[in-house]
Amino acid sequence: MILKRFYDEKLAQASYLIGCAATGDAIVVDPNRDIEPYLRAAESEGLELRHVTETHIHADFVSGLRELVARTGATAYLSNEGGPDWSYAFADDIGARLVGEADSFMVGNIRFDVMHTPGHTPEHLTFLVTDTAGADRPIGALTGDFVFVGDVGRPDLLEKAAGVSGTMEAGARDLFRSLERFRELPDWLQIWPGHGAGSACGKGLSSIPHSTLGYEKLFNWGFTTDTEEAFVAAVLDGQPEPPKYFAEMKRINREGPAVLHGFPEPDVGTLSRLREALDAGAWVVDTRSAAEFAVGHVPGTLNIPLNRSFNTWAGWLLPYDEDVFLMVDQAHADDAIRDLGMIGLDRVGAVFAPTVVHAWADAGGQLATVRTRSPGETEAALLAGEATVLDVRGTAEWRDGHIEGVDVIPTGYLLDHLDELPTDGELILHCQSGGRSAIAASLLQRAGFDNVTHMHGGWAAWAARGLPSVRETTGVGAGA
Amino acid sequence: MILKRFYDEKLAQASYLIGCAATGDAIVVDPNRDIEPYLRAAESEGLELRHVTETHIHADFVSGLRELVARTGATAYLSNEGGPDWSYAFADDIGARLVGEADSFMVGNIRFDVMHTPGHTPEHLTFLVTDTAGADRPIGALTGDFVFVGDVGRPDLLEKAAGVSGTMEAGARDLFRSLERFRELPDWLQIWPGHGAGSACGKGLSSIPHSTLGYEKLFNWGFTTDTEEAFVAAVLDGQPEPPKYFAEMKRINREGPAVLHGFPEPDVGTLSRLREALDAGAWVVDTRSAAEFAVGHVPGTLNIPLNRSFNTWAGWLLPYDEDVFLMVDQAHADDAIRDLGMIGLDRVGAVFAPTVVHAWADAGGQLATVRTRSPGETEAALLAGEATVLDVRGTAEWRDGHIEGVDVIPTGYLLDHLDELPTDGELILHCQSGGRSAIAASLLQRAGFDNVTHMHGGWAAWAARGLPSVRETTGVGAGA
Amino acid sequence: MILKRFYDEKLAQASYLIGCAATGDAIVVDPNRDIEPYLRAAESEGLELRHVTETHIHADFVSGLRELVARTGATAYLSNEGGPDWSYAFADDIGARLVGEADSFMVGNIRFDVMHTPGHTPEHLTFLVTDTAGADRPIGALTGDFVFVGDVGRPDLLEKAAGVSGTMEAGARDLFRSLERFRELPDWLQIWPGHGAGSACGKGLSSIPHSTLGYEKLFNWGFTTDTEEAFVAAVLDGQPEPPKYFAEMKRINREGPAVLHGFPEPDVGTLSRLREALDAGAWVVDTRSAAEFAVGHVPGTLNIPLNRSFNTWAGWLLPYDEDVFLMVDQAHADDAIRDLGMIGLDRVGAVFAPTVVHAWADAGGQLATVRTRSPGETEAALLAGEATVLDVRGTAEWRDGHIEGVDVIPTGYLLDHLDELPTDGELILHCQSGGRSAIAASLLQRAGFDNVTHMHGGWAAWAARGLPSVRETTGVGAGA
Amino acid sequence: MILKRFYDEKLAQASYLIGCAATGDAIVVDPNRDIEPYLRAAESEGLELRHVTETHIHADFVSGLRELVARTGATAYLSNEGGPDWSYAFADDIGARLVGEADSFMVGNIRFDVMHTPGHTPEHLTFLVTDTAGADRPIGALTGDFVFVGDVGRPDLLEKAAGVSGTMEAGARDLFRSLERFRELPDWLQIWPGHGAGSACGKGLSSIPHSTLGYEKLFNWGFTTDTEEAFVAAVLDGQPEPPKYFAEMKRINREGPAVLHGFPEPDVGTLSRLREALDAGAWVVDTRSAAEFAVGHVPGTLNIPLNRSFNTWAGWLLPYDEDVFLMVDQAHADDAIRDLGMIGLDRVGAVFAPTVVHAWADAGGQLATVRTRSPGETEAALLAGEATVLDVRGTAEWRDGHIEGVDVIPTGYLLDHLDELPTDGELILHCQSGGRSAIAASLLQRAGFDNVTHMHGGWAAWAARGLPSVRETTGVGAGA
Repeated sequence: MILKRFYDEKLAQASYLIGCAATGDAIVVDPNRDIEPYLRAAESEGLELRHVTETHIHADFVSGLRELVARTGATAYLSNEGGPDWSYAFADDIGARLVGEADSFMVGNIRFDVMHTPGHTPEHLTFLVTDTAGADRPIGALTGDFVFVGDVGRPDLLEKAAGVSGTMEAGARDLFRSLERFRELPDWLQIWPGHGAGSACGKGLSSIPHSTLGYEKLFNWGFTTDTEEAFVAAVLDGQPEPPKYFAEMKRINREGPAVLHGFPEPDVGTLSRLREALDAGAWVVDTRSAAEFAVGHVPGTLNIPLNRSFNTWAGWLLPYDEDVFLMVDQAHADDAIRDLGMIGLDRVGAVFAPTVVHAWADAGGQLATVRTRSPGETEAALLAGEATVLDVRGTAEWRDGHIEGVDVIPTGYLLDHLDELPTDGELILHCQSGGRSAIAASLLQRAGFDNVTHMHGGWAAWAARGLPSVRETTGVGAGA
Repeated sequence: MILKRFYDEKLAQASYLIGCAATGDAIVVDPNRDIEPYLRAAESEGLELRHVTETHIHADFVSGLRELVARTGATAYLSNEGGPDWSYAFADDIGARLVGEADSFMVGNIRFDVMHTPGHTPEHLTFLVTDTAGADRPIGALTGDFVFVGDVGRPDLLEKAAGVSGTMEAGARDLFRSLERFRELPDWLQIWPGHGAGSACGKGLSSIPHSTLGYEKLFNWGFTTDTEEAFVAAVLDGQPEPPKYFAEMKRINREGPAVLHGFPEPDVGTLSRLREALDAGAWVVDTRSAAEFAVGHVPGTLNIPLNRSFNTWAGWLLPYDEDVFLMVDQAHADDAIRDLGMIGLDRVGAVFAPTVVHAWADAGGQLATVRTRSPGETEAALLAGEATVLDVRGTAEWRDGHIEGVDVIPTGYLLDHLDELPTDGELILHCQSGGRSAIAASLLQRAGFDNVTHMHGGWAAWAARGLPSVRETTGVGAGA
Repeated sequence: MILKRFYDEKLAQASYLIGCAATGDAIVVDPNRDIEPYLRAAESEGLELRHVTETHIHADFVSGLRELVARTGATAYLSNEGGPDWSYAFADDIGARLVGEADSFMVGNIRFDVMHTPGHTPEHLTFLVTDTAGADRPIGALTGDFVFVGDVGRPDLLEKAAGVSGTMEAGARDLFRSLERFRELPDWLQIWPGHGAGSACGKGLSSIPHSTLGYEKLFNWGFTTDTEEAFVAAVLDGQPEPPKYFAEMKRINREGPAVLHGFPEPDVGTLSRLREALDAGAWVVDTRSAAEFAVGHVPGTLNIPLNRSFNTWAGWLLPYDEDVFLMVDQAHADDAIRDLGMIGLDRVGAVFAPTVVHAWADAGGQLATVRTRSPGETEAALLAGEATVLDVRGTAEWRDGHIEGVDVIPTGYLLDHLDELPTDGELILHCQSGGRSAIAASLLQRAGFDNVTHMHGGWAAWAARGLPSVRETTGVGAGA
Repeated sequence: MILKRFYDEKLAQASYLIGCAATGDAIVVDPNRDIEPYLRAAESEGLELRHVTETHIHADFVSGLRELVARTGATAYLSNEGGPDWSYAFADDIGARLVGEADSFMVGNIRFDVMHTPGHTPEHLTFLVTDTAGADRPIGALTGDFVFVGDVGRPDLLEKAAGVSGTMEAGARDLFRSLERFRELPDWLQIWPGHGAGSACGKGLSSIPHSTLGYEKLFNWGFTTDTEEAFVAAVLDGQPEPPKYFAEMKRINREGPAVLHGFPEPDVGTLSRLREALDAGAWVVDTRSAAEFAVGHVPGTLNIPLNRSFNTWAGWLLPYDEDVFLMVDQAHADDAIRDLGMIGLDRVGAVFAPTVVHAWADAGGQLATVRTRSPGETEAALLAGEATVLDVRGTAEWRDGHIEGVDVIPTGYLLDHLDELPTDGELILHCQSGGRSAIAASLLQRAGFDNVTHMHGGWAAWAARGLPSVRETTGVGAGA
């Protein structure tokens, strides 16, 4: 049995290739849309990808299952659990085989036994993997977003992100029962989860890629919280705001993502096309670093730096139903296109070289800047009543400690609260260390706020300097 | 003025980016379909590709002009010379500007003066490039397939490849007159041609990338042959057989190539799909080296090694109106797809990993081999009447010297002459050094000849050993 | 806690980076000499490599510990177990901290508890890793060559490879006791071993990268063999021949490998230098595929194809005390140099382009070929007494089944048995599927045997065709 | 004849590979120290690098001639012109053949005729290249730093950079006479020069890579200036300041550069090593963009962004006789090491990841910032007498137009004029567009000036806004 783990740093997402060397059969579990690595690995191991499956309908990235079927002709195994609202609409189109609790299927000599483990989502499956050539007990469990290392999959996404009200408590109770069943398996069973640290599908995932049931039973709060009520309270508390695009992902992954046959090569944008796009009110994303953007950018562009958080913020802020435009150099254009494609933002109107900023200025256009404030300046402005300060972190972070008297609106919800923001006087934004507040400042500039700054170093710098703060345990921020 | 030359080794083809640093305008001349290098170079120089042109309707590769227009919105300049048979069918679709003799257009401060230089083709243009910022005389001429370094563009392609009978002598005379006009330009004018050594658009191109008119007037046979009659005779003599796909290229480039937005990612083939393809009589190309193929290959596959000649032989042998299949490892699959796309073979059904050969054998399939003969063995078999020997080089090469009594059918014409080949007894093929005869042997095996071998080392080895040969100046080979 | 596994396919070797995100501390365990991947991973995670250790003195590759200390200033932890013969000679030079049974050290908040687990080697350590930030029990054990997935580390290398006679049974008994102690740890403990499938440090390693103690106790023969005597017999039976270079590795790794500061860029060889090298009797390795080599090679060169087995065969066959020469194209030269450097073959005299083979022929040199025989031809020759057949697989493979009447000398031992080989008549070599016999044939050609061939398809093809064979359980091949 | 041009964008330097396909001989002319591209190109063309030469002792980069001889065993051809002060000290060590006026040597069938063309340097050679297989006249001239496209090689470097006083006028007269001789050659002769636009070896080089003698005679001011006196005045006027490292380059290239066998892999720096380096007063170069550096950097580090000007500024500012340290991410570390090595800065003490800046702050260290001023703020401060403004461009640029009352000290000379700078009040630096002033500001911060800012957008922004300025034709800036 061959096992390969693929980890996408930007999605904090793991997929797995499992192959049977004796027969050449292989399967990919929870593929994302960048399927080249699976194809290359299979070829390198002399395997054929004849099977593909996924643990559940993903909410945080576009599934690559359909792309893989189209490219390889693999047989897909899809969940038939969870009821009609959670059935795959495209299952017939690709000739998928539906599976649920107590079913099993073979990948060469390797047996996949299916458990239904609802909680994170109603249709969620877990696969127990047994290498029948040498053993009669499973070596590992592919747990998807059911059990992570150090955490469990949050049951509140449907209600919060997809707007299916009243489901989060029921999900939490389902999850508790799924865990009760799962803990009966042997302690030595390996756990191969679907996400790692940084994923928004939980609140405290570890950076360790894999674990064992016995270890998790000792140290994972999801197993050590022993009553259902305490578990339900704990699992619904302190979860980060789910990105708004999660609802769109669910829909796409249930209905069937478009087959790309490789990420596309978009148009090369010219200065005149940039002008047209901005005049038409289109979203133009400048992917340079916040520091470069601050020094001078084309007015009306949004700054989302091309780092590990790029696709998260793109998903939060960009529309799915119109063309978006990118400012990114050729060396990184493919990465940016791929990142957007991973979350289903397939409509890239054109790509502009960052030198277009200079071309804009050379042609007589003004460049805009973003000013920063130090914690000291911020405190002085706050005391003097000369500025409004706004925290743009998550509500849970705000509760853990914030500047006294400062309200919170998470960056991803800002556009829903524009009318609550002051239109006269300076508005100073801050986040934890300066990354989100830079994005937020560019977002508000684009929305017409012309006196927005952000605080250098964020809450970390404020707290490090011992400036006044408070910890709130009862109140709720505006964005909650 | 910025000048960048792009040279595609496999097509032996040159394209040029010329830019005006002062205005940011740039043009690409004679782009091929792999347009990424132009986009990258323009971005790197801070230029925008606002213009694109080509010297003529190419016969040896698919033009990238339309792809470039689609990706960048550039203005295209196309020839309106040569009469209705040679007018671009898609000119209106892309809003092209038609140009001909004595026209001129500007790329920033750089002036392009158009000369009509028919001969290679009726609509052929040459562009004289003047950097008006610093000079009032042209610095160079973009000569396309009119004048090469050491050679001139052959006027016989239309008749031979595209089957437009009676045009080759008229073309030769046009070419003579075009040269007469061109030689009046200053000796110091640089010549930037469209092809280098190895191109089938001429018979003796140099490896030197650029030259000057004065130097060519001294050493290029096209200029030193002083009467029209002698020139016509010389230019029509000794030209290599034009690849059969040239006719298809002409048609595609005149009607308008498909816009790809990047070369596609084809399906990943499985063993069962390979069987289906072979059963259906599809063309499956094994791109491994001839040595690897000889040791063991799947019966019915054609061997075209993925080296510099790959697209030439693919163009000669593969059909344009059905799916073709490739056997190539993932690391080189993109190259192979690109190579085929460069000559318009866009229909790749699937790509098989070379390990499929082992999978075929593991599943009980027989592997076929290709045997070779040494020159000594070949001579013995020939003397003993135990084998037929066939030369698969070009006719011109055969005339220059061949094995006595051995006829010639160029590799690219073999399929048209199958009924002339002996069906009993061994058939020994040979070429110049063994590359083409390996392809030819696999081609005949695929066509059902089961006693085909080829001679190791080819004519070079035969001649080096002093074996009997003859030089023919009057006869004509079967394939001529 | 951050955990990254690095797997070198050619060495079938795993190393690990473990980091503490809170403090930025990181350690590499069992680094090989290609340390760039560790440096890049650490930087990418924002970690500093302040610590480095290894489980034991490796025999199958050159340790990268010293290179890493030189490049990063990391603190090294080295075993002080096993007695004076197994102490690191360079420990003081690099200021290493010596550790043994019951010691522990911290990497940020992560505790490494040291177990002495002799058997594979006397000084062997196992590290239990506890993430003290969230747990008080170890999550995993870095077992090096003590426990693998599905196998245990062989205790016979010292005696067989390093010639320390009388140690292998003692090692087997030590290993049994080490396993007895280890099995007392919790079932859920993860096992992170030092090797995977294909390593010569065991006989049946799995392709699964990690396991758990509970699972291994159920399915690993090393744990399920319950008496010491049965275990000793089993662990010493059926082990593959240890490569001869293992002895050299042990010496180098104990005394301290040279610090390279990156693998070197060797000289570019010319035709005249190739002649000099061959005239001087130097080892010149042609890294092309066996098929390419067979068609034509420079006489006197040795064929070791640049595939996954390259460094294994280089280690078996090449000398450590003189310059060796490589024939490899520029695109792969760095890989080949790296592969040799990984096993301490640092003396590369020059690298020749494979085109030197044609240059050799063009300059009038003869090219040699390697002929193959089919199983049918081999059987006929054997029956007619016209050829000697020799099996060049491992002795254990030979015992499992071989051609009746055919003796075995493993490829790696051939040079020690030249005087036992027949000098008149054809000598037909065969291995399992044709890879080793191709290397062996070129080795014997180089040694002056001019009538050597090898059997196409090897034992697998012979057996598949139902040709006569025998299984030997008592006899011993010549090379044993 | 095969001709390949290699152009290093950062050095604006051209080298050439010329090969004879018939014999396999090849030569490299004016190699720089990054010799891998030559090796790869030769292998790809099936050529052996048996010859190497250079037109003169370079002042702007380290010659790769010696490295190439060491790696390939090529024969070197070195100038014996110019007298004893200009003879190569290492010629005997490498068995070089000395050549001068009227000598010639063959590279296969290609003849190199040597002309002595002093002016730029006393020993300067020009090579006329004749492809004797097809011509009896030279096709091109390798002119090195004698004739460029649109310019001629400056004769003042020796006096200005190397401090050999009294040589620049004599050099100018030599150059005039060399041009007089050279213009007698045929108009159609191609000119293949040693530098392109941006090189400090001239003042107005074109971006066109090659030209012809006839064209240059019409449009190159060096040929069209018709009296010796006018030429001498013109060629010595308006030349940019020669980088100070040019003197060091001359010395290294005359005495013989160290043979590297590939650029080295330096140590990986830790936070503690960074502290040590700064405490010891070592030069630590932060290679991030000026914007990133401005937002927060480790006090005492120098900002030289890793762009096309990196090695120029490294050469101007860094010492050759002590270790320097780099802050650069792993993905670009090799580039930075190479860039420094290209100009002989081989002593890189260690490389720090840019994340060390955060580690510094996390460990309690203060971060420094660089503030900018707008042109409007600068004008106000100047008028109010609240700040000193200093122009850090070249003297020639300053003369062409500058802010009234503002003096000039070129960035590269700042360290020689520290005592002339004001130590109280704000010092506002500016250059042409902001690149050099950012470097200069970090340089002065490092030197202890704690109230240094620089003007955003530079002279270009000032002039574009119509702010007061003046053009000086007689005065001389402080740095001249």
